[in-house]
Amino acid sequence: MDDLHERLHTLHARLRAGLPAEAVLTDPDVTASYARDMASFCTAGTPAAVVLPRTVEQVRHVMRTATELRVPVVPQGARTGLSGAANASEGCIVLSLVKMDRILEIDPVDRIAVVEPGVVNAVLSRAVAEHGLYYPPDPSSWEMCTIGGNIGTASGGLCCVKYGVTAEYVLGLDVVLADGRLLRTGRRTAKGVAGYDLTRLFVGSEGTLGIVVGAVLALKPQPPAQLALAAEFPSAEAACEAVCAIMERGHTPSLLELMDGTTVRAVNKLAHMGLPDTTEALLLCAFDTPDPAADLAAVAELCRAAGATEVVPAEDAAESELLLQARRLSLTALEAIKTATMIDDVCVPRTKLAAMLTGTAEIAAKYGLTIGVCAHAGDGNTHPVVCFDHADEDESRRARESFDEIMALGLALGGTITGEHGVGVLKKEWLARELGPVGVELQRGIKETFDPLGLLNPGKLF
Amino acid sequence: MDDLHERLHTLHARLRAGLPAEAVLTDPDVTASYARDMASFCTAGTPAAVVLPRTVEQVRHVMRTATELRVPVVPQGARTGLSGAANASEGCIVLSLVKMDRILEIDPVDRIAVVEPGVVNAVLSRAVAEHGLYYPPDPSSWEMCTIGGNIGTASGGLCCVKYGVTAEYVLGLDVVLADGRLLRTGRRTAKGVAGYDLTRLFVGSEGTLGIVVGAVLALKPQPPAQLALAAEFPSAEAACEAVCAIMERGHTPSLLELMDGTTVRAVNKLAHMGLPDTTEALLLCAFDTPDPAADLAAVAELCRAAGATEVVPAEDAAESELLLQARRLSLTALEAIKTATMIDDVCVPRTKLAAMLTGTAEIAAKYGLTIGVCAHAGDGNTHPVVCFDHADEDESRRARESFDEIMALGLALGGTITGEHGVGVLKKEWLARELGPVGVELQRGIKETFDPLGLLNPGKLF
Repeated sequence: MDDLHERLHTLHARLRAGLPAEAVLTDPDVTASYARDMASFCTAGTPAAVVLPRTVEQVRHVMRTATELRVPVVPQGARTGLSGAANASEGCIVLSLVKMDRILEIDPVDRIAVVEPGVVNAVLSRAVAEHGLYYPPDPSSWEMCTIGGNIGTASGGLCCVKYGVTAEYVLGLDVVLADGRLLRTGRRTAKGVAGYDLTRLFVGSEGTLGIVVGAVLALKPQPPAQLALAAEFPSAEAACEAVCAIMERGHTPSLLELMDGTTVRAVNKLAHMGLPDTTEALLLCAFDTPDPAADLAAVAELCRAAGATEVVPAEDAAESELLLQARRLSLTALEAIKTATMIDDVCVPRTKLAAMLTGTAEIAAKYGLTIGVCAHAGDGNTHPVVCFDHADEDESRRARESFDEIMALGLALGGTITGEHGVGVLKKEWLARELGPVGVELQRGIKETFDPLGLLNPGKLF
Repeated sequence: MDDLHERLHTLHARLRAGLPAEAVLTDPDVTASYARDMASFCTAGTPAAVVLPRTVEQVRHVMRTATELRVPVVPQGARTGLSGAANASEGCIVLSLVKMDRILEIDPVDRIAVVEPGVVNAVLSRAVAEHGLYYPPDPSSWEMCTIGGNIGTASGGLCCVKYGVTAEYVLGLDVVLADGRLLRTGRRTAKGVAGYDLTRLFVGSEGTLGIVVGAVLALKPQPPAQLALAAEFPSAEAACEAVCAIMERGHTPSLLELMDGTTVRAVNKLAHMGLPDTTEALLLCAFDTPDPAADLAAVAELCRAAGATEVVPAEDAAESELLLQARRLSLTALEAIKTATMIDDVCVPRTKLAAMLTGTAEIAAKYGLTIGVCAHAGDGNTHPVVCFDHADEDESRRARESFDEIMALGLALGGTITGEHGVGVLKKEWLARELGPVGVELQRGIKETFDPLGLLNPGKLF
């Protein structure tokens, strides 16, 4: 015990030697509040300290200290993650990047932004919009989550069906390595193929390879405001048939989302939005093309051919935004059904989306659970939300089992266990199952190359 | 000498044990013809054997044999590369993938193609077009080069300004590792973030990490035929000013190419195309949008504002294709000026394009050389082509020195030594300069993880 106190004291003293007093938090009540992200069912330890650096040099000091004292480091952004990737490990330094929140540069000709990792996604989106530019990645948590967290988890969002994921917008990175050395990866040019793509390796690496302290991001020109429609279907299969038809015909919607009947009713209950209560699947489709009404008309036709009972196009951007709000409320609405939820993130080939949804319904029935599904349907990325009562031990067990069975179904359909939420602690065993032993061995080899002492976010991914 | 014969005999016998007779070439006259790609000034060794497998199992046999006998392996596609990455090393097995040329699947709903590495780029492009789909990457050599080679070198092309590079179209890979084990990376879904992005690590790795034996490629819907214009400028700076204005105003051309005066005159001399002989820079811009004529009109206005002396819009797709042909002939035309060329591939931020072009002209003057520049101007990716007489020792030396000085200029302007051609043998020392010692150390660490015996394309990259 004395030894532990001694070590804690040393750690705090060393950290304070290179950081301002207010940047080192050691009060256990305070540090405990940094223990977790937003994932259920994930273990978390007690941090030995929380540091809030404001400069690259301070981050380097933290990593040098961690290496010298052999203390693990868990990097954090806004902790809105859903897989426990930002959960503290016992006795770690929590390295929160939220104070490094400057936008350093926005260049409309080179179409790039240079940012620190703590910049909030929505803040960046609004800042670039003032220059007529667009930073597409828009995870649900975009009003809170940070660019550093988005890079760590390789997050997605509603825009991906047209604009792709975070990875496609990261051109270059400044990284502090485990031993405190600085690495610059990538470029600020539109193209570049000099050596192995280390930039991409860091995206989605969940803080296990290094600490991202700066990023060059690619931007797009601001598209026109999108126009949406909502289509009601008597079954999830019919809605999925429409999704496949839309993509097969070569349409490029800026959004193609699905809410199943459970989700629709939950949103109605929460927000009294007057969504069609009897529908079994609601499809939302939007275009930000020069003539979105024409594109929507073609899509409406395809929806009707697939069995839509009603198709309601929005009159204008404001009405479209209302439809999107319903979709954005889905998770909160499903969370209100029981005391707890587990949110899955299985992505399957578009052609297998119907099988994924009917299979998930079967799993819900088998375990006697409510599982609402919303999906980035155009990408085949489903979010089955398992609702359960935390205090009910048997229901909790069934929730956990159904969650796993959903991932197994996704893999069986040629999909992946995670389309955009990452692996963290939640899906470690499943990552090994998806990658296989050769893949895991090589991933571990890469980890070893970057972090030979195993100090960076240990126990995550594998 | 006897020992060498003995070892060659053993190697050939072992290879033949798992490959059909016609798939193992050992006649020195024949194997010598596989020694090089299309780069100048790059060393190449004599292969000990050339193998032409048709199946994954045969590739595994080759790699097992190579590992057992400790013989280096150099993978090859169509050998149209421009950096010596496919050059044989002394005593190696050349592993040519050109016979593995099947398109295994094209799926218009999932918008993917599954291919073997030896499929020729143009063959794939035409095959997917029949399904209303589009595989964008279009290197100049697209009628000859293979998808495997495109993946190995991360190639680009004319389409990149709108559609990005090869890397963005590779979703998943089947790879035979150095020891013959099979690795599957990535996915066939639209999204996926399960673990480190090994897929992207292989793209551009020039055969140094494993042998790509299969790929899942993303496809786009076929866009409308593009419409182009040509604008003449009195100086390269004026043309670059137009490029910046076009991008700053939020346009998304499907092509934005620049030919300098030297290139224009060379093309005229070769093909009598009637391009404006007195112009100092010709800008080609195209759109494949729903209303390309309107987009071109806006661009024409910007070109005039930047000082264009003449702007000629194409009347139709056929006329547009003619303009593109002029661009596609650039390299061949410049090659006809002297007996040899060195083609550089420096990519700079768009805002630095003018500085890159004027700097290159100064380098040409300083060394008393003809250096024609064509550029993927919208991406800031320049191809200065140094023309020289191979037999003239002094001119050859000056060519080499100017080539290096062009890369130094690119780095000084915040650019990269290679936008799309890769590193190979040609730019090894320059890669180290661009990456710095920390970057090189980590890249070597990754190499070591995948290829501990150093058998895969040794001497390339670093």
